[in-house]
Amino acid sequence: MTDTTAAPRRLLGQSAKRVDGDRKVLGVERFTGDLKVPGMLYARPVPSPYPHAQIVNVDKSAALAAPGVVAVVTADDLAVRRPLSALPGKSPLSFGEVSYVGQWVAVVLAETDQQARDALDLVDVTYEELPFVANFAAGMVDGAPPARLIAGSISAEEAAAHNADAGKPKAKVEEARSVNISNSVNFERGDVATAFANSAATAEILIRSDAVHQGYMEPQICLVAIDALGKYDVYTSTQAAFMSRGRIADWLDIPLTDINVHTMAVGGAFGGKFILIEPIAAALAATVQRPILLEFGRTDELASSNPAPACEIAVKVGATADGTLTAIEGNLTYDTGSLAGSPLGIAAILLGGYYKFPNLKITGQEVLTNRASAGSYRAPGAQQASFAIESAMDDLADKLGLDPLEFRLKNCAEEGDLRPNGGTWSRIGLRESLEALRAHPAWVDRTPTTAIAVGGWPGGTEPATAICRMDQDGTLSVVVGSSDISGVTTGFQMIAAEVIGVDREDMRVVNADTATAGFAASSGGSKVTYAMGSAVLKAAENARAQILAIAAQQLEASAEDLEIANGRVQVRGVPDASITLKEIASLSTSAATAFEPVYGSGSTSTTESAPAFTVHLADVSVDEETGEVTIKRYVAVQDVGFAINPALIEDQMIGGVAQGIGWALHEAIEFDDDGQLITGTLLDYVLPRAEHIPEIETVIVEVASKYGPFGAKGVGEPPAIPGPAAIRNAIKRASGAKLSSLPMRPERVLAALRER
Amino acid sequence: MTDTTAAPRRLLGQSAKRVDGDRKVLGVERFTGDLKVPGMLYARPVPSPYPHAQIVNVDKSAALAAPGVVAVVTADDLAVRRPLSALPGKSPLSFGEVSYVGQWVAVVLAETDQQARDALDLVDVTYEELPFVANFAAGMVDGAPPARLIAGSISAEEAAAHNADAGKPKAKVEEARSVNISNSVNFERGDVATAFANSAATAEILIRSDAVHQGYMEPQICLVAIDALGKYDVYTSTQAAFMSRGRIADWLDIPLTDINVHTMAVGGAFGGKFILIEPIAAALAATVQRPILLEFGRTDELASSNPAPACEIAVKVGATADGTLTAIEGNLTYDTGSLAGSPLGIAAILLGGYYKFPNLKITGQEVLTNRASAGSYRAPGAQQASFAIESAMDDLADKLGLDPLEFRLKNCAEEGDLRPNGGTWSRIGLRESLEALRAHPAWVDRTPTTAIAVGGWPGGTEPATAICRMDQDGTLSVVVGSSDISGVTTGFQMIAAEVIGVDREDMRVVNADTATAGFAASSGGSKVTYAMGSAVLKAAENARAQILAIAAQQLEASAEDLEIANGRVQVRGVPDASITLKEIASLSTSAATAFEPVYGSGSTSTTESAPAFTVHLADVSVDEETGEVTIKRYVAVQDVGFAINPALIEDQMIGGVAQGIGWALHEAIEFDDDGQLITGTLLDYVLPRAEHIPEIETVIVEVASKYGPFGAKGVGEPPAIPGPAAIRNAIKRASGAKLSSLPMRPERVLAALRER
Repeated sequence: MTDTTAAPRRLLGQSAKRVDGDRKVLGVERFTGDLKVPGMLYARPVPSPYPHAQIVNVDKSAALAAPGVVAVVTADDLAVRRPLSALPGKSPLSFGEVSYVGQWVAVVLAETDQQARDALDLVDVTYEELPFVANFAAGMVDGAPPARLIAGSISAEEAAAHNADAGKPKAKVEEARSVNISNSVNFERGDVATAFANSAATAEILIRSDAVHQGYMEPQICLVAIDALGKYDVYTSTQAAFMSRGRIADWLDIPLTDINVHTMAVGGAFGGKFILIEPIAAALAATVQRPILLEFGRTDELASSNPAPACEIAVKVGATADGTLTAIEGNLTYDTGSLAGSPLGIAAILLGGYYKFPNLKITGQEVLTNRASAGSYRAPGAQQASFAIESAMDDLADKLGLDPLEFRLKNCAEEGDLRPNGGTWSRIGLRESLEALRAHPAWVDRTPTTAIAVGGWPGGTEPATAICRMDQDGTLSVVVGSSDISGVTTGFQMIAAEVIGVDREDMRVVNADTATAGFAASSGGSKVTYAMGSAVLKAAENARAQILAIAAQQLEASAEDLEIANGRVQVRGVPDASITLKEIASLSTSAATAFEPVYGSGSTSTTESAPAFTVHLADVSVDEETGEVTIKRYVAVQDVGFAINPALIEDQMIGGVAQGIGWALHEAIEFDDDGQLITGTLLDYVLPRAEHIPEIETVIVEVASKYGPFGAKGVGEPPAIPGPAAIRNAIKRASGAKLSSLPMRPERVLAALRER
Repeated sequence: MTDTTAAPRRLLGQSAKRVDGDRKVLGVERFTGDLKVPGMLYARPVPSPYPHAQIVNVDKSAALAAPGVVAVVTADDLAVRRPLSALPGKSPLSFGEVSYVGQWVAVVLAETDQQARDALDLVDVTYEELPFVANFAAGMVDGAPPARLIAGSISAEEAAAHNADAGKPKAKVEEARSVNISNSVNFERGDVATAFANSAATAEILIRSDAVHQGYMEPQICLVAIDALGKYDVYTSTQAAFMSRGRIADWLDIPLTDINVHTMAVGGAFGGKFILIEPIAAALAATVQRPILLEFGRTDELASSNPAPACEIAVKVGATADGTLTAIEGNLTYDTGSLAGSPLGIAAILLGGYYKFPNLKITGQEVLTNRASAGSYRAPGAQQASFAIESAMDDLADKLGLDPLEFRLKNCAEEGDLRPNGGTWSRIGLRESLEALRAHPAWVDRTPTTAIAVGGWPGGTEPATAICRMDQDGTLSVVVGSSDISGVTTGFQMIAAEVIGVDREDMRVVNADTATAGFAASSGGSKVTYAMGSAVLKAAENARAQILAIAAQQLEASAEDLEIANGRVQVRGVPDASITLKEIASLSTSAATAFEPVYGSGSTSTTESAPAFTVHLADVSVDEETGEVTIKRYVAVQDVGFAINPALIEDQMIGGVAQGIGWALHEAIEFDDDGQLITGTLLDYVLPRAEHIPEIETVIVEVASKYGPFGAKGVGEPPAIPGPAAIRNAIKRASGAKLSSLPMRPERVLAALRER
């Protein structure tokens, strides 16, 4: 095993451009929407106008008579052999009962996209309206109508893909207070009541967050073509090619090997593109035996994709006069939409997990409502939990008259500390991150309006296989089955080039399809570099050993005495004794050779994730007339284990902060009293614009992980977590207004100012 | 390493259906010609009407004005950055000098295939005719004009792909007697003149063979599409995906990794589809930046593909009265067409290699002529050499009054015997094959008209990498980069299924592309099963070990105590202690698992080939009125090392015999005195029809090879070798007519009858 700690590295730790950067900047990247297949039909969904209804009849005749329309497909028409009710996972297509506005009643298939869109209004659907649940509060009251008549939940596989805690022993399920409570948690240790009674001060807050969309540029899109042999080629903008393949196989009841999922360039995902439309697209292709391009419009995205759910969290924390935490009590309610599977569990763990609480009681429940079912958005559950705990911690520090950073440092969780679910933290860098911020000029020279907040993410793990192969011309490639999101492929290139001893440009990375790549779990949950990166490291080491073995024979030297540099293998100290990589390639791929081709593979697996922490600093001004909040300074400090490519990590941090700012101040998926979606376009759903994002200062902290390549940890989730809390705390320091609901738009700021 | 000798095997050695059989029989196999790509242009070549000429001018105007024509491309227009003269390998497209009738002057690109064909005649070419060389005899005379003004030869890589002797030390090159002699051989040992003087009898013959086409059903075809990123996707009916990739890279001067060659289903190849049109198709795509489908018509095939060359071989053999061979003297002349690279060397080795000749002198030369350059056809060089030596041996047995089978048995080469080039035979099964035929009813009960002939093939070797992977549902796949010809894929399936312990149907085989598969040399030279099969064996063993390691942990047992059966890993003798393969797959591909994905790889290489011998028996009747020959009985005995799939080996043997019959009695590429091709269609080029092929009896002999999987040897080449000689000897026994020229059509038989 390569020594993953020794420094200095030739390539690692130095900023490098993304391998996909030029392609994307120049506009030559080929996204799924750029693909054309002969005979391809365009699919567009007919959305339900009702939040809850039975479909009584679908009259297709007018639509079928429209130009170019080939079929109008309902669930009943789908060529799936299993009963619809047995199909796993969520389906935007209704199976008879629509359970949110925008759920699909049918799909129109036409020769052109415009023809499909034009025919949507011609599908005449008769509904029988059902009582609906507008939000989680309504869903929990006695006598509330059920939000859905048929049970369902997202798959355990999907839940587990995001963090290593999913699938761990569940909390005791409380007796349901409502037909709509689909999951609950209950974590408890010590005696919270006594602890609060003995505390010098307590602080409590009830936070709320609306549902939020990931805001990716490229909507959900999937192309499925059935080849002449009846096999399915699936081209999709997904984070999870192998999971998509499995779900399609489940739906169609065919072998995995009849499906090949090609990981396409992903135009943004952030947790929202694990799987959604792939099984339907495949089933549509199976039904009409034509290639299908199924694409979301922006309204489909906002109505029926994978939103971060609305929630409400009540939390109370107490401490002694010297600032030692005594207890936490919390209750979380998640609006899981029309399908069980919200991030309730992980939110509960994080709510009580950042600090050493001797006494703890955290309960929670998720509630079915007539909204699109909850999805995952970059740190699912963590933003809301952090907003709650970091607001309460900040208020408690104020009450105790303590420095909010020192207060957090005094109590922050460390390796071995208990988490609410009984698990312990492994080696984490929360303390180091707080210390790094403490030393930062923005904190040293802080203003009275400077505030901070912590964010943490437990991290995921995944089994992974990577390949490192040499081609006949001596070039080397890493082959992985993972999707390239946020530059992970560039990291793979750097790891393999470092290990082999070649330039970065001389190491190609192939994001292959599920038929030819080794297994890869999903690209999400801050685990791709952590897990697949280790597989790439092993594969490269394997390939290097094969290269050196050939060179050793040819140079009549011991492999240990060899080094690879400048495209050659050479004997250390004997510069004339060398052989080029190209010669080794030729030697090992010629007819009648004694040498085997160079083909390295590496597989990894670990049950231990690498949790990652971040601390954000925000300084804001508040316009007391308009309620508008202006961010004056923003610093993000993050423990990344080891910074393989600092530039891309900073990109990740900056992007995450921008998303946090959007969530904090702008974004919300909103509904009116009739359950109708108000924010159906980007005119109504307010994404932050460039003018809203300040210059963001980044600080990288490196507390090495045990299993990540060279000590690296996943870096995707954390930067999107503490923004709302940091900004809320800064608003408080700037104006005295104590906000508790996201987004903190001007009208809410004005209301809070009035309540001061 | 799996014990490759122990019997019995669960699957191996038992006949099984081809994995591709149903697809091909049902007509759902997707060949290259079935592919459509948006924007695809159809390419058709403008053939030269002259055997030798300079192209003075190409007037494209009329063609360009024709409907649908997009471009008329000559070599000068090609987007290749290297000088045309530096492009390696053969090119059907002329670079200014046309050197055979049918060579391409230009290529018409049009929106439809018909439009391209219609415009061919509109391309107005001005030629300056040059003196031409009609055949090798004309090419060798003093003062013969040069057949080509620019030098060139086929690549050494291509030559080496067929047999392990290519690339070995060359014979001393004699002083050229003509400008057209492009290669020569000279093998000598002992004193031939004295040996003949001391012989009881000698026999000599001068055989001739016309050029012959492989006769595959699917003509050369290649589709090249450049993707949005400028990378080349090449879909081609080739035996050599990696070699094609390399040649395209050479032509276009781009990295290998910018090219992905997809191995398509091959509609027959027989050595003729290593590489021919792929670089031109890619260069055309590069030139016009549109996808190109380049397809041969049958006339293109017969005029400018990869024909087995015409040749003339003089051979004289001598023996003592007891039938001990004394000496051989031979001279071979190969018509290499317009490019050096005929199978002269291997023919010379085989001519003197089947038997123990104490004294030997074999010389030979290849001659450039104005014909399409020589290609490889299933046992290149071996048919003609065998026709010569096996005719002479048979005549010598007759002269000595010896049983022709016993005469061969007495003198047949064995392990360690010298070959003409100084190499030695490894363990071969010639003796065992002769003995098997001696025991066969067709020999035991032989008629006076029964005759035999021997054929041998040195075999090739190749480095190869295979993968054996488990998918999430527990299914297993073998992934190889080799083309599937003649059922080799079915053999891989059987090998991997045998090793792992699953049913054949539960082992998928993926013929992958060059981007994702491990390296594979070409599928030809009777070496795919021998070399890639061993890699598959190793990959499957690797995967099996990974499976057992997971099961051992789960079952708390030692891996040595485990067996795989019925889709489960179980402890031997403890039927209840078991785990399904599906469970192992799930365990090793779930999030947060302790187990790594199952991904086995195996690479192999050996410099030692596995030569394979065959003996054919033919019994014929000759119609003395018409000269027509009717085959009454035909037996093929072949040493295959180990018969992995007996049914497919028998298929191979029968198919080879049919091709031998075609060569013996029907087929010839013929030219008139002006150098014009006479046999430009299948009406003129006479392939054997079903009525010409008798029931063929097959006998499999198994003399295990050292390196092949389970002792297997390549079986493709041998059965196509001895047919012409066996039939010629049978005609002699049936009628007394001693033929010496192929094909032995009725007019030649009548002539020989007259000469009796």
